Amino acid sequence: MKKVLLATSALVLSAGYAAAEAHSGISLSGSANAGFKYAEGADDEITLHNEINFVITGVGASDNGLEFGAFIELDEDTGNDDEDGTDNNGVADAEAYISGVFGTITVGDVDPATDGFGIADVGFDGIGVDDDAEGLKNGVGTGADLVYSYSASGITFTASAGVDNEDYAAAIEYATDMFSVGLGYIEGNGADNETLTVVAGISQGPVSANAIYSDWTGGEQAYGVDVSFDTGAATITAVWGSTSVAGNDDDYGVGVSVPLGGGLSVAGGVGSVDGQTKADLGVTMSF
Amino acid sequence: MKKVLLATSALVLSAGYAAAEAHSGISLSGSANAGFKYAEGADDEITLHNEINFVITGVGASDNGLEFGAFIELDEDTGNDDEDGTDNNGVADAEAYISGVFGTITVGDVDPATDGFGIADVGFDGIGVDDDAEGLKNGVGTGADLVYSYSASGITFTASAGVDNEDYAAAIEYATDMFSVGLGYIEGNGADNETLTVVAGISQGPVSANAIYSDWTGGEQAYGVDVSFDTGAATITAVWGSTSVAGNDDDYGVGVSVPLGGGLSVAGGVGSVDGQTKADLGVTMSF
Amino acid sequence: MKKVLLATSALVLSAGYAAAEAHSGISLSGSANAGFKYAEGADDEITLHNEINFVITGVGASDNGLEFGAFIELDEDTGNDDEDGTDNNGVADAEAYISGVFGTITVGDVDPATDGFGIADVGFDGIGVDDDAEGLKNGVGTGADLVYSYSASGITFTASAGVDNEDYAAAIEYATDMFSVGLGYIEGNGADNETLTVVAGISQGPVSANAIYSDWTGGEQAYGVDVSFDTGAATITAVWGSTSVAGNDDDYGVGVSVPLGGGLSVAGGVGSVDGQTKADLGVTMSF
Repeated sequence: MKKVLLATSALVLSAGYAAAEAHSGISLSGSANAGFKYAEGADDEITLHNEINFVITGVGASDNGLEFGAFIELDEDTGNDDEDGTDNNGVADAEAYISGVFGTITVGDVDPATDGFGIADVGFDGIGVDDDAEGLKNGVGTGADLVYSYSASGITFTASAGVDNEDYAAAIEYATDMFSVGLGYIEGNGADNETLTVVAGISQGPVSANAIYSDWTGGEQAYGVDVSFDTGAATITAVWGSTSVAGNDDDYGVGVSVPLGGGLSVAGGVGSVDGQTKADLGVTMSF
Repeated sequence: MKKVLLATSALVLSAGYAAAEAHSGISLSGSANAGFKYAEGADDEITLHNEINFVITGVGASDNGLEFGAFIELDEDTGNDDEDGTDNNGVADAEAYISGVFGTITVGDVDPATDGFGIADVGFDGIGVDDDAEGLKNGVGTGADLVYSYSASGITFTASAGVDNEDYAAAIEYATDMFSVGLGYIEGNGADNETLTVVAGISQGPVSANAIYSDWTGGEQAYGVDVSFDTGAATITAVWGSTSVAGNDDDYGVGVSVPLGGGLSVAGGVGSVDGQTKADLGVTMSF
Repeated sequence: MKKVLLATSALVLSAGYAAAEAHSGISLSGSANAGFKYAEGADDEITLHNEINFVITGVGASDNGLEFGAFIELDEDTGNDDEDGTDNNGVADAEAYISGVFGTITVGDVDPATDGFGIADVGFDGIGVDDDAEGLKNGVGTGADLVYSYSASGITFTASAGVDNEDYAAAIEYATDMFSVGLGYIEGNGADNETLTVVAGISQGPVSANAIYSDWTGGEQAYGVDVSFDTGAATITAVWGSTSVAGNDDDYGVGVSVPLGGGLSVAGGVGSVDGQTKADLGVTMSF
């Protein structure tokens, strides 16, 4: 028996679709992936990987036009692939925000302002070909409890603070349909833990490309590029990244994603990550 | 993509709003808060606090008129503020009930019959100004697995049992629009662990007030009062509480809550809790 | 405030019930039970037991007719009764599948192909009278990461693999309205850990019966039968099971389940499990 009680929603519906658009109430969304991952020389070279997550989101609007909302993400996966590097089966993420003419303030399991920068990964789940290139963008061990963002005329300004640890970050981005540029700065609690990151992207018909460059005051740099080509039936992506941090090799990979409609895609990727050949092949679903 | 499947619900809607009112199906509700908390002299005097929770509730009715239901509460918060004093991120609470002419029986993560008694706290999240005054109402270390309640003619009788630990409690309350009185008794497993609690409340136009007095056989008492004034635009609340338990000072505080409509409120409170100045200021959301 | 946002669903509804039947979107379902369990000679002979679970399910269909979906099950219970023998409050189970003319592939917290075989238990929650009879059907310590199934003309073929541990299982079942027969084989990583299981069932008017026989290469057998009679107002079930594994006695029990309509049932059972008298009595709810 699968039912959803619609006492309030019945009223929403009788008031028409416009009322539903007014952003009030609770909604569900979800995604899943499943496939095989290959890591050259690992104890188990081929492993089965799958992730399932659902998000419960509530939104509302005050009488004076403030918009607010919160979500909880439920997650279960076979591996160790949560965004924050831990395996949080159960409630994996939760955030709340309030938004008005002043911008949007978000609290909860938020990421630093510089976390939005990055290049593409390849594969249905990702082989990590972008990890070195993105490894310095958030400094070292730098977090956030609070994020502020403001958008106008194609410019988005974002600032974050990790209140207890005195971590701070700021990012500014300008985007048109054709290109985007961004500049980010993060400073963590501790000496010489500051990173400046520059990103740029272009999009011309079926071709798009992105680049990232990070300079960390600890004396290291990280950088990478991605190029994608959308054939209509599939998107082919190539990625190259590297870092000056000792013990890392250049990373490169190529992947393809084929949307099958209705939220289902088949995707796979292969590449070299720190000298190790990695690949994956599987499906992604969104609900 | 955010969708809710409505196979059964479509039928519910075509049968009209009355069918939805028949209490059958599953619904979602949620709440969140976010703000700053101040604790004089703490390692971090000012901390950011936020809580997000969503509740999934299922209800039904048998052919002979028994009503039943269950809920699971998902919770994530930055602090350690769950009702039971533990930090249960994930499934924080779950209860099931069955209800008929005999009353309502509830099982799960239930609280003793005396837990419903209390006075107000102040602030968006609460500074704990009511904790001492309510510290004996549930005895000491006394729990419950099973709660029975029956309401008729303004009288509500509640009884609870902690089956394994032989904890028992009972409460009776009489309420009109103008006033309420209640009497509660709880007895825990172990010698001299019984508490008698008396509560009373009045409500006259914009003013309401509540008082609680608990007498524990261990030789201690706890007591407190709250007074609230609803200006229309805001509710101002003052609270005073104390306990004879050694090591505690009188607690007092004042708070204000301003509803902004649509489920959003701004609230803050300041007071002295066991000699320590505490304050909070933030927003609360309900979905 | 309990609301469900229906932006997309409003469109689904305006397209009619057929669209909802097209299996796209997210739905909720749930169940709960509550009652008392008795175990002769235990420290607490009578205990209160309750379980609550809700399932969030997302489904979709690709343009070329592949069906896919995933679910997460949230669970909270007082005991230790999860399917896998652990007490996973929180996310207790999660699976994802993709289905087409080739059959259905399922990944996640799946069970071996032989796990579907079994006989009935008795009681609102189950006293475990079937556990010995089913104790060898999945071999010893044999799991699965991946399940494939294909159904046609009343025949269902199921195969599973535990990729990392090299566990494999296969089952074939043929069912009509009157009877069913099945054969299962499972082989676990390790010497002499193979089990062959045969099941058969009949259903004649109000009477139905099932039998299971497992032969494990470790030199042990397990077997059992159930018989049920549906009086219309209630279903009475008798079960007998046994195993040659040392330290186990014959198990037998009888139970009754009375559906009250709307998803509510009262059920109870009593029996002898490995020489210990066990019983339970309670209600089950489905939403």
